[in-house]
Amino acid sequence: MNEIRGGICAPKGFKASGIHCGIRKNKSKKDLALIVSENVCRSASVYTTNLVKGAPILVTKENLENGMAQAIICNSGNANTCNANGIEIAKEMCLLVEKHTAISKNDIIVASTGVIGQTLNIAPIKQGMKELVRALGDNSSDANEAIMTTDTIAKEVAISFEIDGVECRIGGIAKGSGMIHPNMATMLVFLTTDVAISPELLKKALSEDVKSSFNMVSVDGDTSTNDMLSILANGKAENKEIIKDGADLKVFAEALNYVTVKLCKMIAKDGEGATKLVECEVLGAHDTETARIVAKSVITSSLLKAAMFGADANWGRVLCAIGYSTANVDVEKIDVDFKSKAGRICVCKNGAGVTFSEEIAKTILLCDEITIIINLNSGNETATAWGCDLTYDYVKINGDYRT
Amino acid sequence: MNEIRGGICAPKGFKASGIHCGIRKNKSKKDLALIVSENVCRSASVYTTNLVKGAPILVTKENLENGMAQAIICNSGNANTCNANGIEIAKEMCLLVEKHTAISKNDIIVASTGVIGQTLNIAPIKQGMKELVRALGDNSSDANEAIMTTDTIAKEVAISFEIDGVECRIGGIAKGSGMIHPNMATMLVFLTTDVAISPELLKKALSEDVKSSFNMVSVDGDTSTNDMLSILANGKAENKEIIKDGADLKVFAEALNYVTVKLCKMIAKDGEGATKLVECEVLGAHDTETARIVAKSVITSSLLKAAMFGADANWGRVLCAIGYSTANVDVEKIDVDFKSKAGRICVCKNGAGVTFSEEIAKTILLCDEITIIINLNSGNETATAWGCDLTYDYVKINGDYRT
Repeated sequence: MNEIRGGICAPKGFKASGIHCGIRKNKSKKDLALIVSENVCRSASVYTTNLVKGAPILVTKENLENGMAQAIICNSGNANTCNANGIEIAKEMCLLVEKHTAISKNDIIVASTGVIGQTLNIAPIKQGMKELVRALGDNSSDANEAIMTTDTIAKEVAISFEIDGVECRIGGIAKGSGMIHPNMATMLVFLTTDVAISPELLKKALSEDVKSSFNMVSVDGDTSTNDMLSILANGKAENKEIIKDGADLKVFAEALNYVTVKLCKMIAKDGEGATKLVECEVLGAHDTETARIVAKSVITSSLLKAAMFGADANWGRVLCAIGYSTANVDVEKIDVDFKSKAGRICVCKNGAGVTFSEEIAKTILLCDEITIIINLNSGNETATAWGCDLTYDYVKINGDYRT
Repeated sequence: MNEIRGGICAPKGFKASGIHCGIRKNKSKKDLALIVSENVCRSASVYTTNLVKGAPILVTKENLENGMAQAIICNSGNANTCNANGIEIAKEMCLLVEKHTAISKNDIIVASTGVIGQTLNIAPIKQGMKELVRALGDNSSDANEAIMTTDTIAKEVAISFEIDGVECRIGGIAKGSGMIHPNMATMLVFLTTDVAISPELLKKALSEDVKSSFNMVSVDGDTSTNDMLSILANGKAENKEIIKDGADLKVFAEALNYVTVKLCKMIAKDGEGATKLVECEVLGAHDTETARIVAKSVITSSLLKAAMFGADANWGRVLCAIGYSTANVDVEKIDVDFKSKAGRICVCKNGAGVTFSEEIAKTILLCDEITIIINLNSGNETATAWGCDLTYDYVKINGDYRT
């Protein structure tokens, strides 16, 4: 598995573009992205579990019913959600892509992100389409920039790997920041791959993957109305099509997980206002579900997140978050360690505090990537969740987002 | 129902005290409280649902098995939780009360609040007992001060009311601030009453009450390991003992709810770093449970809480929080209004945004007590939840709580 350049344009046969069309007032911020494949792709998506769903999600769901798609259009600046004419606008976006690219409007994935409840003006999109299509090329980072909202860093990754001797690629871009919470692809993630795979197995691989990747990320516990994860697979790598369980599918799943976990960490680390990535690794669980519940509960705790911001080794908050997680654990068996590149320290053994150097703990927690290791000492299952600290800037960013 | 002075000492036959004994370094902060009744009381408690339970809770549970108690001892500064010898220390606290008051150690409610995972030193408590007992009197506010942690205002209330022509009283003190979350008495609340009531009905009334009071409060979504709600009923009002369902029990339940809701609002408004009380009133629900789930989800949303801090009428976040609440609602029927003493404004009708004056909305949201009114338009059931805004100070207080 090698990391390569190119993001979503690294796999063969994909082009992308991102422009400022005018949905946002700030002209220096791109707000419209397009991703297209040379040919029709196998496609799968995972959607927000929020009962309030953005109109683009409803339209995408319909378009993906046959498991096929060829392009993705996405705007930032307005979520096109909770509007009277949201569906109409989302469909018009698909129609505009058809008009300018000859890709069928039914093969389009459409997405929007931004403020909820304000009508999305189609005019700037209509006006920008020509430029958007003309700009198509090896421009993964432009597309990435165009889907960003309060993100501060680009989230792009691509890898190459071999399936039965044939070189294949997966690329991805993501938009995260606020509203990122375990329980489905609560963010925008677009993946491209040139792997040849059946629609059924692509769907299965994606659904399996999110359980240990995007469902294990939380920034603030809120689940967005609009977020989704979509993958396009165009088969251009010309590997023997994966049509059944087995070694090839396993390789693909591993490659996919490499990309998604990488994006998860980027998303968590760039959580709104975050100054550090907080990883929670749960070991020794009786079953995977228990490990996941515990890991999620810890990284979601506001108290723990604030303590991480302050580099405060307040392990009591870790135990507290385990305690209310609803997981069935034996508290008196729990060990807790804090770890970072500065070292590792045990702070709790058998559910009770141990004497430790506050100074060393502080040094460890001052790093920008921290791992909380929880050993439940009750089995062999594990899980990892990713989150971030809770900071003044989170409050600042969200205290007045719209104005 | 009349509000009266005196807090927990307002009901006949109760005395209280609060002193600085030395658990805390800061000598100006009281850290040990005692509440006693002249006679043995009927008593009931509700405890944290956190799997990690403070040692005092385990001891109190045991002592209250017979439904009787006569005194409450509580320290702040250390939670006596996740320690090797917590139970031993909690029992020693009961024994100290017995020694100095002749109240049986089995009739004591013991509570601790503060940092988790550090051994509670019994020495200052031992040393302070004499002074604590000597100080017993009409000192509700001293006791209140002694149980406070990061609380900034005292939380004390008392009322008088009549049961079948006999004047009765209920008093209460509370400690809240951080870690306050729906799902049980997630705070310390001590109630006293001179009502004569059977242990069974007292227990039932308390359990019923928390569903619409303390279970509907959230500051930060974290459920503490130590918090509990206890009531002592000494019968000194000499009303005819309430031994069955009926008008008398109804009056008692209403009086109890007046006191508990009052304390809930105080707790929410004084949430860590909070600048305002955020009340969420859900109307038109098909059933009470739905109304409760929706109300809780809204006041718990970090995004919504940050918007309230910024006086930002971002009603999309209200819809979003309803959407992921797991409640079964028809999004397209939902109306949302914001209300405060400055006025009322409708911001969302039938699940979609309506045109409204941002200026008026801002004026409304700048007040320190805000109500979010959600009409689900699907039935006649209602619920109310209380929370607060998310502020810079929440982060500051919790970023470095221990040092």
